[in-house]
Amino acid sequence: MGKRLNTIKSKVAEMLVINSNREGNKFLEAFISVLILANVVVVMLESFKGYKLKYGAFFEVFEVVTVSVFSVEYLLRLWVADIRYPKAGTVGSRVKFVLSGGGLIDLLAILPFYLPFFVTTDLRVLRSLRLMRLLWILKLNRYSKSMRLVGQVLMSKKTDIFVTVFVTLLLMSIAATLMYDIEHEAQPDVFANVLDAFWWSIATLTTVGYGDIYPITGWGRFFGGVIAVLGIGLVALPTGIISSAFLEQLDAQKEKKKKKAEKKKGVEE
Amino acid sequence: MGKRLNTIKSKVAEMLVINSNREGNKFLEAFISVLILANVVVVMLESFKGYKLKYGAFFEVFEVVTVSVFSVEYLLRLWVADIRYPKAGTVGSRVKFVLSGGGLIDLLAILPFYLPFFVTTDLRVLRSLRLMRLLWILKLNRYSKSMRLVGQVLMSKKTDIFVTVFVTLLLMSIAATLMYDIEHEAQPDVFANVLDAFWWSIATLTTVGYGDIYPITGWGRFFGGVIAVLGIGLVALPTGIISSAFLEQLDAQKEKKKKKAEKKKGVEE
Amino acid sequence: MGKRLNTIKSKVAEMLVINSNREGNKFLEAFISVLILANVVVVMLESFKGYKLKYGAFFEVFEVVTVSVFSVEYLLRLWVADIRYPKAGTVGSRVKFVLSGGGLIDLLAILPFYLPFFVTTDLRVLRSLRLMRLLWILKLNRYSKSMRLVGQVLMSKKTDIFVTVFVTLLLMSIAATLMYDIEHEAQPDVFANVLDAFWWSIATLTTVGYGDIYPITGWGRFFGGVIAVLGIGLVALPTGIISSAFLEQLDAQKEKKKKKAEKKKGVEE
Amino acid sequence: MGKRLNTIKSKVAEMLVINSNREGNKFLEAFISVLILANVVVVMLESFKGYKLKYGAFFEVFEVVTVSVFSVEYLLRLWVADIRYPKAGTVGSRVKFVLSGGGLIDLLAILPFYLPFFVTTDLRVLRSLRLMRLLWILKLNRYSKSMRLVGQVLMSKKTDIFVTVFVTLLLMSIAATLMYDIEHEAQPDVFANVLDAFWWSIATLTTVGYGDIYPITGWGRFFGGVIAVLGIGLVALPTGIISSAFLEQLDAQKEKKKKKAEKKKGVEE
Repeated sequence: MGKRLNTIKSKVAEMLVINSNREGNKFLEAFISVLILANVVVVMLESFKGYKLKYGAFFEVFEVVTVSVFSVEYLLRLWVADIRYPKAGTVGSRVKFVLSGGGLIDLLAILPFYLPFFVTTDLRVLRSLRLMRLLWILKLNRYSKSMRLVGQVLMSKKTDIFVTVFVTLLLMSIAATLMYDIEHEAQPDVFANVLDAFWWSIATLTTVGYGDIYPITGWGRFFGGVIAVLGIGLVALPTGIISSAFLEQLDAQKEKKKKKAEKKKGVEE
Repeated sequence: MGKRLNTIKSKVAEMLVINSNREGNKFLEAFISVLILANVVVVMLESFKGYKLKYGAFFEVFEVVTVSVFSVEYLLRLWVADIRYPKAGTVGSRVKFVLSGGGLIDLLAILPFYLPFFVTTDLRVLRSLRLMRLLWILKLNRYSKSMRLVGQVLMSKKTDIFVTVFVTLLLMSIAATLMYDIEHEAQPDVFANVLDAFWWSIATLTTVGYGDIYPITGWGRFFGGVIAVLGIGLVALPTGIISSAFLEQLDAQKEKKKKKAEKKKGVEE
Repeated sequence: MGKRLNTIKSKVAEMLVINSNREGNKFLEAFISVLILANVVVVMLESFKGYKLKYGAFFEVFEVVTVSVFSVEYLLRLWVADIRYPKAGTVGSRVKFVLSGGGLIDLLAILPFYLPFFVTTDLRVLRSLRLMRLLWILKLNRYSKSMRLVGQVLMSKKTDIFVTVFVTLLLMSIAATLMYDIEHEAQPDVFANVLDAFWWSIATLTTVGYGDIYPITGWGRFFGGVIAVLGIGLVALPTGIISSAFLEQLDAQKEKKKKKAEKKKGVEE
Repeated sequence: MGKRLNTIKSKVAEMLVINSNREGNKFLEAFISVLILANVVVVMLESFKGYKLKYGAFFEVFEVVTVSVFSVEYLLRLWVADIRYPKAGTVGSRVKFVLSGGGLIDLLAILPFYLPFFVTTDLRVLRSLRLMRLLWILKLNRYSKSMRLVGQVLMSKKTDIFVTVFVTLLLMSIAATLMYDIEHEAQPDVFANVLDAFWWSIATLTTVGYGDIYPITGWGRFFGGVIAVLGIGLVALPTGIISSAFLEQLDAQKEKKKKKAEKKKGVEE
C-alpha cells in the first residue's frame, strides 16, 4: 500500500509542477485561473447593496469553496515538497517550500480566511480581510505563461525601474515643498500643507491633472509649468527602459537562432 | 457566349484582387475609400438637426447608393470565388469566401441595411442600425496599403498587447475595489458603487483625469497616487511593445537587403 | 565696375548659403535667429494692454525693421539666384528660386506686411496679418542646425506619421458619433451635436481630459473607458515610430564608421 | 609628526574619492545619502504648523548638524585637493577644486546657511534660504551609483533634449499667442493675457489638462484639438530620444563583450 501511495504522490507532484506538458495540467491551470478571476468579480459585486442582499449567501459559499480548493492545493504542495527538494530531508524540504516565494504567496492566500478563528476581530478588520482575496491574483502569475513573460521583462530591468521610482519620489517631494511655499499664502485652504502639495505634484507629474488642485499665482504657474514639462520626461524614462528590455529579449532570441544555424553549418562542413 | 462570360469573369476577378498593379484597380480602391469616408461624414452631419431637416432626403439616397455599390461588390466577389479558390469546387469556394475574414466584413457591411425588410424593428433599433455604417471603415483596411502596414505591426504583437490589456483590466478591477472601500464612506454619492470607482480607475490609469471623480481622504489620495504612478508604467508597456515591433520590421528589411547583397557578391566571385 | 559688382555678388551668394563654414555666416545665422525669436516675444507682449500703450510705437518700429531686413534678404537671394541655379538662365533661375520651398517661406514672411498697401482691409484682418509674423519661425528651420536634425527624423517617417494621424482622425470621428448617440439624451446641452462629442474624443484620446465634457450614463462611461484605453495605444504608436527613426539614424552612423574602419584595414593590408 | 599627518591626509583623500571599493567608503556614502534624504523629510515636516511648534527646536539642531557635517566635508576636500590635483601646486589645486563641478555644488550646499551672518536679511529671504537645503539633493548624484547611470543616459542625449525643450517652448509660445487671439473676446477673464494662454498651452501640450482654462469657441476648440494632438508628438519625441539612449548603452556593452571574446579566440589560435 505504501507503494501505491508513492505512485499517487509522484503523480500529484508532477501535476502541481507548472509548465509540464501533461494534458491534465492545462486543465488545472485554466481551472485555478478562472476561480481567481471569478473571485475578483464576486468581490466587486459585493459592493452593490442590492446584489449583496440577494446573493450574499451564494457569495459566501463561493468564498469558502475557493479557500478550500487553495487549502487543499497548499497541503498537497506541502506533502510532495520532499519530491521537489529531494536533498533537503523530510522536514527541511517542507520548511524550504513554506519559505519559498510561491509558498509564501500560497500561505498569504489562505491565511486571512483562517485568522478570525484564532483572533477576535471587529467587523471593520473582517471586511478588510475579505478584500485580501484580491491577493489571489498573485497566484495567477504562476499559472499563466504570458503574465510570466511580462513579469520577466519587468524583473530584468528592476534596478532601472527602482531608480526611476526613487528619482520620481524625490522630484515629487521637491516639487511639493516648493509649490507649498509658493501657493500657501494665495490658497491657504487648497494648499493647506505639504501633503496637499504632494497630491498636486503626483497629479501633475503623472499628467493625470484632475483639476481639484492647481497653482493660481504667477510664480506658481511658472514653477508648475516646469514640473509639468519634467513630467513628460518622467513618462519617457520608464518607456525607454521597458522598450529596451523588450528589444533585448528580441535580440537574445535572434542570437540563439543564429548560433543554431552556425552550428548546423559547421556540422555540414 | 460562355467563353465571353468567362473572359469577363476573370477580368472581374483580377479587378477585385487588391494590390495588383492594374491602373483600374487603383481607381477602384480610391473610389471605395472615398465612398466610405464620405459616409462617415454623412453620419456625423446627420446629428445636426438643421442639416437633417434640410438634406435628410439626400443623406438617405447617398446611403442607398453606397449599400448598392457594396452589395454589387459582394455579389461579384461571390461570383468569382471559384477563381480565387480553384480547388474548393463550385459550392465549396463560395462557402470558403463567405466564411473568410474579408467575406464576413463585407457581409456585415450590408446586412444591417437589409435587416428591417425581414424583421419588424422599432425606431430606436433602426437608428442604431444606421450607425452600423461606421463598420464600413473595417473595409478600408483592405483597400489602403498604409493602414494594412500599421495593422500588421499591431498583429505581430497581438499576444503582448492582449496580455497588457488583460493586466490593465485586472489592475483596474483591484484599484476600483480598493478605492471604493476607502472612499465610499467619505463620498457616498461620488463613489456609490464599484462601477463608479472603476470609472475613476480608468480615468486615472489612462492619465485622462477628467476631474469628475477623485479621492479626498488621506488614504484615498495615497492609494490614488500609487495607482497614478502605475498608470505611467501602463503607458510605457504598450509603447515598448510597439516600438520593438517597428524596429523588428526595420531589421527584417535590412536583413533582406544584406542577403541580396551577399548573393550578388557570391555570383560575381 | 561690372567686375567689382560680380565679386560682391558672388560674395553675397556665398554668404547666403547656409551651412558654409565662413565665420561671417555664423554671425548672420545667429542674428536672424535672434531677430525671429525677439519678434515672437514682441507679438506676445502686444497682448498686454499696458505694454501696448507704453511701448506700442517701439513695437511697430521693431516690426518695420525686421520686415525690412527680411525684404533685403529676399531681394538679395533673388539677385544671386542665377549663381545658385547657373543652368536655368537669367529669368528661369529667379522663377526657380521663387517657387522653391525656401523661397516660398521667405515670400510668405514678408507678404502680409505689404498686403494692406495694395488691398483695403478692415482692422480685424489687419490684426490677423500681424500675427502672421509667427510664420517667421519657419525660417528658423533653415538657420538652425539642430532643428533641421529633428525635422529630418520626422520627415524620414512622414508616411507612418500621416497614417497615424489619419487613423487617429478616423477613430475620433467614430468615437464622437457613437458617444453623441449615447449621451445626447442624458446631457442634451453638453453633447449638443457631434462637434461637441468630437471635442470630447480629442480630450480623451490625447489623455488631456479638461473635465468640461464627459459621459455620465453607464453605457457612455463603458464606451468612454474603451476609448480612453485606446488613447494609450494612440500615444504608443507615434512614440514607437519616432523611437525607431532615432535608432535608424544611430545605426546609419555606426554603419558608416564600420565601413570606414574596414576600408582603412583593407588599405593597410 | 609631519609624516603621521601625511598618512592621515592620504587616508582622508582616499576616503573621499567616491567609487573606491574600500569598506569604509560604502558606509560614508550611505551616511551622507541618508542625511540628505532626512533633511528633505524635515523640510516637508516643517510645513505642518503642529510639527513646527512641537519639534521646531529639533529641526533646527538637525539642520545645524547637517551643515556642520557638510562644512567639515568641504574643508577636508579643500585640504586634500593637492593630492587629487598633484600637478596644480598648493594654491592652484585648491582653486581647481573650488571651481570644479563637485566643488561648486558643495559650496552651494553650505553657503546659504552662512549668508545671514554676513548680510542682514528679512524673514522672507531667510525662509527661502532654508528651502535651499533641497539643493543638497544634487550632492546625492555624486554618492549614488544608480543615479549617476540615469544622469549619464540623459547627458549623452543633452543636445537632442535641449532641441526638444526649445521646440516645445516655441510651440507653446505660438499656441499661446494664437489661442489668446481666438479666445480673448469670448472669455476675457479666463484668457486675460498671453500668460494665461501660455498656462493653457502648457497644460494641453503636456496632456495634464487641469480644466481651469480651456477654449469654448468653435475655432478655439479646433485649434486646441490640433495642439492637443501635437502634444502627443511632444511626448513621443523625448521618449524616442531616451529609448535610443538606453539601447545605445546596451549595444556598447554587447560590443565590449564581443571584442573580449574575439581577443580570447585570437590568443587561443
